[in-house]
Amino acid sequence: MALEIYNTLTRRKEKFEPLHPGFVGIYVCGPTVYDHPHIGHAKSYVSFDVVVRFLRYLGYKVRYVQNITDVGHLLETGEDRVLKKAKIERLEPMEVVEKYTRSYFEDMDALNVQRPDISPRASGHIPEQIELVKTLLEKGFAYEVNGSVYFEVAKFPEYGKLSGRKVEELIEGYRIDPSPDKKHPADFALWKRAEPEHIMRWPSPWGWGYPGWHTECSVMSTKYLGQPFDIHGGGMDNIFPHHECEIAQSEAAYGIPFVRYWMHNNMVTVEGVKMSKSLGNAIYLKELFKRYSPMTVRFFILTSHYRSPLDFSDEALSAAERGLERLWNTVKEVRERIPFSDTGPIPQDVADVLASRKARFLAAMEDDFNTPLAIGELFELSREVNTWLASDRPLSKEALMAIDGLYTELGDTILGIIPKKFPEEVRGELEVPLIQLLIELRQEFRKAQDWEKADRIRARLRELGIILEDTPQGTRWRRARV
Amino acid sequence: MALEIYNTLTRRKEKFEPLHPGFVGIYVCGPTVYDHPHIGHAKSYVSFDVVVRFLRYLGYKVRYVQNITDVGHLLETGEDRVLKKAKIERLEPMEVVEKYTRSYFEDMDALNVQRPDISPRASGHIPEQIELVKTLLEKGFAYEVNGSVYFEVAKFPEYGKLSGRKVEELIEGYRIDPSPDKKHPADFALWKRAEPEHIMRWPSPWGWGYPGWHTECSVMSTKYLGQPFDIHGGGMDNIFPHHECEIAQSEAAYGIPFVRYWMHNNMVTVEGVKMSKSLGNAIYLKELFKRYSPMTVRFFILTSHYRSPLDFSDEALSAAERGLERLWNTVKEVRERIPFSDTGPIPQDVADVLASRKARFLAAMEDDFNTPLAIGELFELSREVNTWLASDRPLSKEALMAIDGLYTELGDTILGIIPKKFPEEVRGELEVPLIQLLIELRQEFRKAQDWEKADRIRARLRELGIILEDTPQGTRWRRARV
Repeated sequence: MALEIYNTLTRRKEKFEPLHPGFVGIYVCGPTVYDHPHIGHAKSYVSFDVVVRFLRYLGYKVRYVQNITDVGHLLETGEDRVLKKAKIERLEPMEVVEKYTRSYFEDMDALNVQRPDISPRASGHIPEQIELVKTLLEKGFAYEVNGSVYFEVAKFPEYGKLSGRKVEELIEGYRIDPSPDKKHPADFALWKRAEPEHIMRWPSPWGWGYPGWHTECSVMSTKYLGQPFDIHGGGMDNIFPHHECEIAQSEAAYGIPFVRYWMHNNMVTVEGVKMSKSLGNAIYLKELFKRYSPMTVRFFILTSHYRSPLDFSDEALSAAERGLERLWNTVKEVRERIPFSDTGPIPQDVADVLASRKARFLAAMEDDFNTPLAIGELFELSREVNTWLASDRPLSKEALMAIDGLYTELGDTILGIIPKKFPEEVRGELEVPLIQLLIELRQEFRKAQDWEKADRIRARLRELGIILEDTPQGTRWRRARV
Repeated sequence: MALEIYNTLTRRKEKFEPLHPGFVGIYVCGPTVYDHPHIGHAKSYVSFDVVVRFLRYLGYKVRYVQNITDVGHLLETGEDRVLKKAKIERLEPMEVVEKYTRSYFEDMDALNVQRPDISPRASGHIPEQIELVKTLLEKGFAYEVNGSVYFEVAKFPEYGKLSGRKVEELIEGYRIDPSPDKKHPADFALWKRAEPEHIMRWPSPWGWGYPGWHTECSVMSTKYLGQPFDIHGGGMDNIFPHHECEIAQSEAAYGIPFVRYWMHNNMVTVEGVKMSKSLGNAIYLKELFKRYSPMTVRFFILTSHYRSPLDFSDEALSAAERGLERLWNTVKEVRERIPFSDTGPIPQDVADVLASRKARFLAAMEDDFNTPLAIGELFELSREVNTWLASDRPLSKEALMAIDGLYTELGDTILGIIPKKFPEEVRGELEVPLIQLLIELRQEFRKAQDWEKADRIRARLRELGIILEDTPQGTRWRRARV
C-alpha cells in the first residue's frame, strides 16, 4: 500500500512521491481577510488539515504554507475587497486585515485545525512579486500598458492545462476583467496602476500600483518551498482562473514545472443550493458555533470526502452530532474503565480486530484521504468494542489501553475528532452551581444535626481547594489561592 | 485636571494635546520574534496597554500600532537574530517568526494586554524602507558604500537630542557597528548588502540586501499614523541608538517633526541586578506563569510606575499575589451580596467616598499614568468598603452595584486587573470531582433508602445538564449534549 492522491492536473489518482524523500512541501490558498470565515473556509481548511496530519503521521517532515491575502483580491467591479471593507467599517485597511486575520485563526483553532508553519501575507511580499513581473516582461510573456502589466496568455500555449479550458473558448465576462488595455480578454493583470487616492499601493518600475491577485501565490509558495514543490491545494473555485494563472506565471518565468500534485476540495451547498456570499446564504462559523460545537462541525465536514460537495442542513448537522456523541461515548467508557481494571494480556481476538480495523482505516486514508470510509471504520471498531464492553468477559487494563491508544492514533492524531480531553473535562461553567448545591446539602445535614456528613462535605471540598466559611450571613466559599 | 505625560524629548511632564482633537496615534516598538517573551516584555507591553486603555477611557479614538521585528535586528556580532535562531532550530526563518510571534501574543493575551490595532512586520514593509533610504540619499543625508547605505550623522545636527548624547563623545563599541565602510563610527546602516547565502534579502537600487533595524519603525509608524504623530513608546534601552536614529531618518527625510511625545518604560532588575539574556537571568513568562497567575504578574508590574525600574523577586511577587487576593476578596463579597440585597437609595456617605476615590484615582492616572498611586486608591476604597460590609447597616442593591461598577470602571476598564469573571468562575478542573462527590452522596442516600434526597440530587444535576444513569457497574454520568 502507498498513498495515492488525486491530481487535478492529470485528472487521475497517482502514487504520491515527494520531490525530496522524507520531506513534503505543501501550499494551500488561504483566506482573503475582509470578513469572518464561513463554512466554506471550514470545509477547505479542515480538509487540508487532515491531509497535513496524515502526511505527518506517515513520517514525512511537512512544511505547510498557507497565505493571507490582504491586498489585490479584486471584486468583479474592480474594487479591492479589503479596501472596500475598510471604507464600510471606517478603518485603516491594515486594521481590517488584523481584525479578520484574528477572527480566521480563532475559528480555525476552535475547529482543531493545526496552524500552518508559515502564514505569509501578500502585502509582505511586494518586492518578490515585482521581481516576478520583471522576469515575465524580460522574457516576453507580459506587456506593460499605462502603468499596468498583463500576462499575455497567447504566449503560453499550455494555458488551460489545469482547468481544461481553451483560450479560444474563453469569453469576456467569465471572471475575466475586460480592461480595454488588454490585448486579449483572457490576459490577466500582473501589476495594476493605482491612482494616488488608492491607499494600498507601492512603487514599482511601472509607477505606483499593486500586484494582481495571482502573483502572490506564485511567489510565496516558491519562496518558502522552492520550484517545483510537492502539493498545491485550494478550493475547486480556484482552479480557474487563479491556479491556471499561477501555473502560467511561474512556469513561463522559470521554464520549469511549478507544482507536482494539485489538490482541490469541493464546495459547500446549503440544502442543495450553492453557498455564496452574493446569494446571501453564507453560514458564518461564529454563528454556527452557537448551535453546534466546533467539533461537531469538523466531524460533519469529514463525513464527506474532500472532493465531494458538502451539503449543509440542520438535519445533517444534527445527525453528525448524534454520531459523534455515539463515537465519544464508547471512547469515554473505555477510558473510564482503565483505572478500575486489572492487568492482564490482550486477548488475541481483540488484538486481531484492532489490527484489522487499523489496516482498513489506513487503507482508506491512503486512497486519496477517504475520510468518510475511515470514519466508517471507527464506527465498525466501536461496534466491536461495545460488544466487548457489554459482555461478561472483563477487559484487561492492557486491552483497554490498546483500544484507547488506537482511538487516539486514528481519531485524534490523524482526524482530530476524538480529543484527549472531552469538553466535559475542561468546561467549567458548572463548577459554581455544583459547589452551591453541595453547600446546600451540607446546610440540610447541619439542620438535621448530621454533623459527620456535614463535616465530610466540608473536608472533601477542602481537598479540592474550596474553603467554606460559615458566617452569620450564611456559608461563603473561596479558593485556597488566587 | 488634564492628562500630563513625561516626554523624554523635553525631559519634563507636558500637558497632553493630540494633533487631531479626539484622536490619538501611538506607536510602540514591538518584540523581535526570535525567542519566547520574558518579564521585560511584560513590563513594557503591560505599561503601554494601560496607557492605551486610559486614553480610550478618556474618550480618545486611539489607533495603536506595535510592530513585529522579523528581520534586520542584528546582534553585536553582526548576525541577524532571527537567522541565527533559524540555524539553531533548523527552521526556515519565517517558521521561527511564526512560532515566536504566536508565543508572544499567547503570553500577552494571558496578561490581559489588549491587541494592537495593527501589528505590521518589518519584512512586510521593504518597499517603504527602500523609499526612505532613496529619499535620504537624494537629500544628501546618506551615502552608499559597496551596496550598503549609511546615514551620515554629521549631516543632521540635531542627532542626540532625544538621548542627550553628543556625536563627538560617541566612541566605537557602544552598540555601534564599527564597519570600515563608515565615514564616522556613529553613522548607522540604512541598508546592508547581503551575500547570496544570506536567506532574508531583497532586491534594491543598491543590489541585494536587507534594511537596517531602525528604518522599519520610521516607515511603519508614519505609514499608519502620519508624520508627525502623537506618541512613540518603547523601552528605555531603545532611546539610544534606536529612537535617536528613527528621529534622524524621519526628520532628515521629510523636514518636519517625527513624534510629539516620546514615552519610555524603565527596565526590569532581578534581585537588584539588571535582567538580560546575556547575563542568563532572564525570566521567561511561560515559566513564571507556572508559579504565579498572569494576573498576579500584571498586578505586580503596575504596582511600580512605568518609569521606575521593576525589581523582580519571589518575595515581591508573593506580596503582590496576596495584595491582589485581598483586593479581589472585597470585590467578590460585594458581587456575591448583590442578588441577596434589597433595593434602596445609595447612602450619601457611600456616594461621597466613591466619588472622591474615583477623583483621586483619575488624578493619579492623569499624572503621567501613576498606576502605583492609582492602585493605592483602590486599596483605600477597599478599606472603606470592608468597613461597610462588616457594619450592621445593610447596603442596598443600588449601593453594592455602584461599588461594583466603580471597581469595574477603574480596576477592569482602565487597569485590567479586576476581571468581570474571577478565575474560579471560569476554571473547570473541579467539575468532574464535584460531580463524583455528588454521585457518592446520592449513593449513600440510596443505601439509606432516603429516596427523596437521592432523587433531588439527580434532578438538580439534570437541571445542570448532567444525566445520571444507574447501571449494574455503578452510576455513570454524561452531558445532555455533545
